Amino acid sequence: MLLALSTWPEIEAFLAKSKTVVVPIGSNEQHGPTGLLGTDWLCPEIIAHEASKRSDEVLVAPTFNVGMAQHHLAFPGTIFLRPSTFMAAIGDWTRSLGAHGFTKIYFLNGHGGNVATIEAAFSEIYAEYSFRKERCPFAMKLKNWWDLDGVNALAMRQFPVGHGSHATPSEIAVTQWGYPDSIKTAEYEPKIAPTGPIREALDFRARYADGRMGSDPALATPEKGGELVEQAVVSLIKDLAAFGAEARP
Amino acid sequence: MLLALSTWPEIEAFLAKSKTVVVPIGSNEQHGPTGLLGTDWLCPEIIAHEASKRSDEVLVAPTFNVGMAQHHLAFPGTIFLRPSTFMAAIGDWTRSLGAHGFTKIYFLNGHGGNVATIEAAFSEIYAEYSFRKERCPFAMKLKNWWDLDGVNALAMRQFPVGHGSHATPSEIAVTQWGYPDSIKTAEYEPKIAPTGPIREALDFRARYADGRMGSDPALATPEKGGELVEQAVVSLIKDLAAFGAEARP
Amino acid sequence: MLLALSTWPEIEAFLAKSKTVVVPIGSNEQHGPTGLLGTDWLCPEIIAHEASKRSDEVLVAPTFNVGMAQHHLAFPGTIFLRPSTFMAAIGDWTRSLGAHGFTKIYFLNGHGGNVATIEAAFSEIYAEYSFRKERCPFAMKLKNWWDLDGVNALAMRQFPVGHGSHATPSEIAVTQWGYPDSIKTAEYEPKIAPTGPIREALDFRARYADGRMGSDPALATPEKGGELVEQAVVSLIKDLAAFGAEARP
Amino acid sequence: MLLALSTWPEIEAFLAKSKTVVVPIGSNEQHGPTGLLGTDWLCPEIIAHEASKRSDEVLVAPTFNVGMAQHHLAFPGTIFLRPSTFMAAIGDWTRSLGAHGFTKIYFLNGHGGNVATIEAAFSEIYAEYSFRKERCPFAMKLKNWWDLDGVNALAMRQFPVGHGSHATPSEIAVTQWGYPDSIKTAEYEPKIAPTGPIREALDFRARYADGRMGSDPALATPEKGGELVEQAVVSLIKDLAAFGAEARP
Amino acid sequence: MLLALSTWPEIEAFLAKSKTVVVPIGSNEQHGPTGLLGTDWLCPEIIAHEASKRSDEVLVAPTFNVGMAQHHLAFPGTIFLRPSTFMAAIGDWTRSLGAHGFTKIYFLNGHGGNVATIEAAFSEIYAEYSFRKERCPFAMKLKNWWDLDGVNALAMRQFPVGHGSHATPSEIAVTQWGYPDSIKTAEYEPKIAPTGPIREALDFRARYADGRMGSDPALATPEKGGELVEQAVVSLIKDLAAFGAEARP
Amino acid sequence: MLLALSTWPEIEAFLAKSKTVVVPIGSNEQHGPTGLLGTDWLCPEIIAHEASKRSDEVLVAPTFNVGMAQHHLAFPGTIFLRPSTFMAAIGDWTRSLGAHGFTKIYFLNGHGGNVATIEAAFSEIYAEYSFRKERCPFAMKLKNWWDLDGVNALAMRQFPVGHGSHATPSEIAVTQWGYPDSIKTAEYEPKIAPTGPIREALDFRARYADGRMGSDPALATPEKGGELVEQAVVSLIKDLAAFGAEARP
Repeated sequence: MLLALSTWPEIEAFLAKSKTVVVPIGSNEQHGPTGLLGTDWLCPEIIAHEASKRSDEVLVAPTFNVGMAQHHLAFPGTIFLRPSTFMAAIGDWTRSLGAHGFTKIYFLNGHGGNVATIEAAFSEIYAEYSFRKERCPFAMKLKNWWDLDGVNALAMRQFPVGHGSHATPSEIAVTQWGYPDSIKTAEYEPKIAPTGPIREALDFRARYADGRMGSDPALATPEKGGELVEQAVVSLIKDLAAFGAEARP
Repeated sequence: MLLALSTWPEIEAFLAKSKTVVVPIGSNEQHGPTGLLGTDWLCPEIIAHEASKRSDEVLVAPTFNVGMAQHHLAFPGTIFLRPSTFMAAIGDWTRSLGAHGFTKIYFLNGHGGNVATIEAAFSEIYAEYSFRKERCPFAMKLKNWWDLDGVNALAMRQFPVGHGSHATPSEIAVTQWGYPDSIKTAEYEPKIAPTGPIREALDFRARYADGRMGSDPALATPEKGGELVEQAVVSLIKDLAAFGAEARP
Repeated sequence: MLLALSTWPEIEAFLAKSKTVVVPIGSNEQHGPTGLLGTDWLCPEIIAHEASKRSDEVLVAPTFNVGMAQHHLAFPGTIFLRPSTFMAAIGDWTRSLGAHGFTKIYFLNGHGGNVATIEAAFSEIYAEYSFRKERCPFAMKLKNWWDLDGVNALAMRQFPVGHGSHATPSEIAVTQWGYPDSIKTAEYEPKIAPTGPIREALDFRARYADGRMGSDPALATPEKGGELVEQAVVSLIKDLAAFGAEARP
Repeated sequence: MLLALSTWPEIEAFLAKSKTVVVPIGSNEQHGPTGLLGTDWLCPEIIAHEASKRSDEVLVAPTFNVGMAQHHLAFPGTIFLRPSTFMAAIGDWTRSLGAHGFTKIYFLNGHGGNVATIEAAFSEIYAEYSFRKERCPFAMKLKNWWDLDGVNALAMRQFPVGHGSHATPSEIAVTQWGYPDSIKTAEYEPKIAPTGPIREALDFRARYADGRMGSDPALATPEKGGELVEQAVVSLIKDLAAFGAEARP
Repeated sequence: MLLALSTWPEIEAFLAKSKTVVVPIGSNEQHGPTGLLGTDWLCPEIIAHEASKRSDEVLVAPTFNVGMAQHHLAFPGTIFLRPSTFMAAIGDWTRSLGAHGFTKIYFLNGHGGNVATIEAAFSEIYAEYSFRKERCPFAMKLKNWWDLDGVNALAMRQFPVGHGSHATPSEIAVTQWGYPDSIKTAEYEPKIAPTGPIREALDFRARYADGRMGSDPALATPEKGGELVEQAVVSLIKDLAAFGAEARP
Repeated sequence: MLLALSTWPEIEAFLAKSKTVVVPIGSNEQHGPTGLLGTDWLCPEIIAHEASKRSDEVLVAPTFNVGMAQHHLAFPGTIFLRPSTFMAAIGDWTRSLGAHGFTKIYFLNGHGGNVATIEAAFSEIYAEYSFRKERCPFAMKLKNWWDLDGVNALAMRQFPVGHGSHATPSEIAVTQWGYPDSIKTAEYEPKIAPTGPIREALDFRARYADGRMGSDPALATPEKGGELVEQAVVSLIKDLAAFGAEARP
């Protein structure tokens, strides 16, 4: 069930049976010569929407489609939120969902660079309750889609060499499966991109000439993407159920 | 051309011929018994995406899908940003796009409640340059989709009675055209909803029992939605061209 | 009754009979070659003070004398608040007045450029209550003095040509009536100023060489100002009474 | 010369001969049974306006009429800014004046409770330049009107007993001189109010039943107020001249 | 008793007998050619730790070791917080301590430049309660170590000439007593440093070539430091007891 | 070399030979029945100070002694900064050090709960430069002391069972070595504490009755602490040298 394509009475009815909601969250940032700028928000959206088709228990909020990507700004098309802005926005999304009675708010993340800020945002929200010596009426959980049970292991089997950490063949494969009309190709030089630290945008572009980090996106295929989505969907449904069933002390 | 389905080299190439980008912006909020929660961001997204299919000159950024909707929070499914958060986020989106060399940043808006905060956000951004006595390298423009040339007049012809101001038949018609599988029906009581002021969420729910303001959504049809989209798309393409052609003094 | 010239026991006594307060709010910004820098805060102050002389029901707070005027900064004498600062300040004024038991807080505005930020500020305040699922103990209302019943119509009759939108003959006439010792004159070239968009300060000065927008201030006279004040005062007293009488749902 | 009653060309002309501007700054807060709520902003305004009548060198900005008065909020009529808001607003006023080329920005203060926040605001502004390793193009100065040369000594002679620290006979005398139609009287019990620490608003009201601290306002007369104004005006003109003449290292 | 070297059950036990805690607070900033960069946080730490050795009633929190020192940034080693950051941090420290049930939170300060911001921070915290019309469950107190009973008088006797206001012989003497292995020497030219206003960092360095203001640090000795510490410790223990015994109205 | 016990000319001299500085950063929070509240800032301080004794190349800034510990607030003695405050403070520390010419700013961290916010703070700082399309003049690095080469492996050998994740025997051992007079003992029940998620403070206390997570602090000894410090110091000196030698692209 997609929240944005539902009415408020439908959400009211959903809340009568489940208090769990999943928010796809990612980033809109360069993904090398062939990766889509939307890769990091499209992947969790694809997986969450697919899960919602398979289970009536899965309610998917609109996708939070920009994140923390300051280091990619020297490549055209990147749009990002500063961590302070990102935290404020996550706070407002979460407070809104919490106000409706959702007690389990699950962020399915598609961008490694988001992790620190999302966790900091959770702490910022919990801190309001801690200072007031109150229980927080909801719990938040962050899960990267590649950390869903079995997904990373599959990707390592699919791409034993050249997976890397940015513009990876696994994420590109997922978008190829989801958007087969938007598959792009290029010659990669070098075949496997370099790796190193992440700092400000000009430093990033100086280190990573075409935007990739450690990856060989040429390995991606829509079929491999479909396998990854399949594994992720099954695991997501289980993980959401477990989170929803969790009792609080 | 959809930015999220493009690569950074494609955006770099686009920038060589045009410096204009359109950002669909809306809200995720209750729209009465039958309106989709996503109505206000789906409408500008539908129109902008349709325009991008018709013209190579139209580059569409990802949709900014939550906005200022605090008054709707007492209806399940609403997600909103406080104005201060909304302003910060618009600022970061705009600074990101500006950094790539876009000089004309056009927000196609789908929610009346956003207007004040978006304009305040523009002023906040311009003020940085004003304090530094510098020219701002980009211009921002806000346009509600119903204010595109000819659109509101068409809606008034389509719905001479019962258009109202929230959960209107025109916006619902647009989403019916865009999402024909998600058309919902209900009995409306009263047929035309009441009108009045907008204050905090509990006040709003006390005044507007089912969430509508002054509207009769039963009048919406996908066909009327298609007509509205057609008019909006033609006018949007013209308005973007005019904005892009505008010289600065 | 002027709040600043009252004592706290007098305000306590006033609150026993009325919970309504009016705050004149404007801007301190250039108004062309002859308009006073204070025009936009002097006009609502003149009108509100005059109303307080005529009715014991009218309590006037001190004037909020700076607002959102970043675009005028390239003209000497302009002082402005960024929207984020302006919102914070309006919030503190309002929370202060609300703490005393005022339930109807009415901002009589003198600057079009303030409207967006004031409305955003109202939403920011209401949002605190919406997130907490509480009723807001007070209602806020924004009214531009020229939107008071009959005022704009009178101005259109007085100045059928050359009214414009900044440094207008109507606002200048009001200050001429209020401050007859501070009437300034100049040759205007062109007689009627140009119009166009509003962006950052240097852009504004490049477009509007002497600071006017679309106006011919030479048309202003103290007499016309007196007529405008008379109309505004009568309408303000009625509008305040209606706002004060409004019940909440 | 009053900035608000001037035009931008007049301020431009003033800047050609002087770069100094004075901003009256105070607070709108309870001042005991008989003190005006505006006392703390009226006093510096009265003094600065009087100085501007006597010297062409004295340019007076609009009055900053609310300040840091959280402790007075339990008495009706008090309006205050939180220190964070107050600092932001002082910053925007100062940056605006600095943008016009004023190099000496002088705040004539009427409220002891403002001092800490104003000084913190100055530091916040200077810090922007310090972090950037740049010279700040303007200097700021804070002066309480009672600290102007000779003023406090005069007040101690006028009111050797019962001056106190809030709702003092000296500040009330100044407003009696400035607003002779708004002189209020009451029986004070006790004659001289108690003193003690300042904390949150309910604590303040519990300690200081009628709002005074250590003062006997019955001692105030318009004549004594006139003497204080006279002394303050003479000293202000000198102090402004000295500040304006100060060279930077 | 040092909080950082205690366990939470020990603090729980302490709270059963006392609700008072002292927070040494200072700054890390240049102190002339021979003063330690940590002088301003070391002095209150030395005094508070010594007091805790002498009285079981004295509980000392960790030292807040950076403060408002923007003006010293042009000298290497200075680390400072902007006032807005400093206020936020003081707020979080205080709210944390208040959450544990401390009702008397005493800041022993070592830097004059901190005073304004710390007081503003107190007001910011109190304002939260004032706006909500609630009692604040704790009281805050700021005391500079040199303002402890008898300390400044002793310093004036020790250093009748050349005490000055920054890099003073008294503060340097205290650190010499506390850190006898870190005593530095230099030739001072001039012997007594100049005085003047404090503005941004480059202005400061232009005025005060070696960082001192009005002082002759050559006068400092560890013995004089020991005398100052002795006086301060005795007075601090008394002052804390008096603050702890203070009843609220 | 300890920055706080140095003078500014000494830091100026240090900068002539090295641009690297290490900031110990931790948290002041409960560490179970026997762990010191300061454990998380004492550990990196102990290690960094020891390293500075062994190498003239190691310059240690004052310790940043509070961090993100909202979840521990239900245990007395915990003091924490909200992530937004923590980020602002890290920003000001870093900008200060950067202003002096340090190009490598190394945070030696002692608290896992800090990692997300510190990384978000780094991104916030880098983003300023990314938006301005400028190189950041300094690089920041975060290293947990247990992640220094060989340290965690040693801890796993020392404590193969019962290490856990909070109030671990390794961190307690380090403080026992550093503060042998502050070793506390208690009966632990259960011997090894439970594990689970981290949410707001009341949730934390409900899950972890005495504050430990997964650990058996009874295993700690000062000798094991000494071994850990020895390993950490050697690795820290190497890691700082490598960071200092790193060239930017």
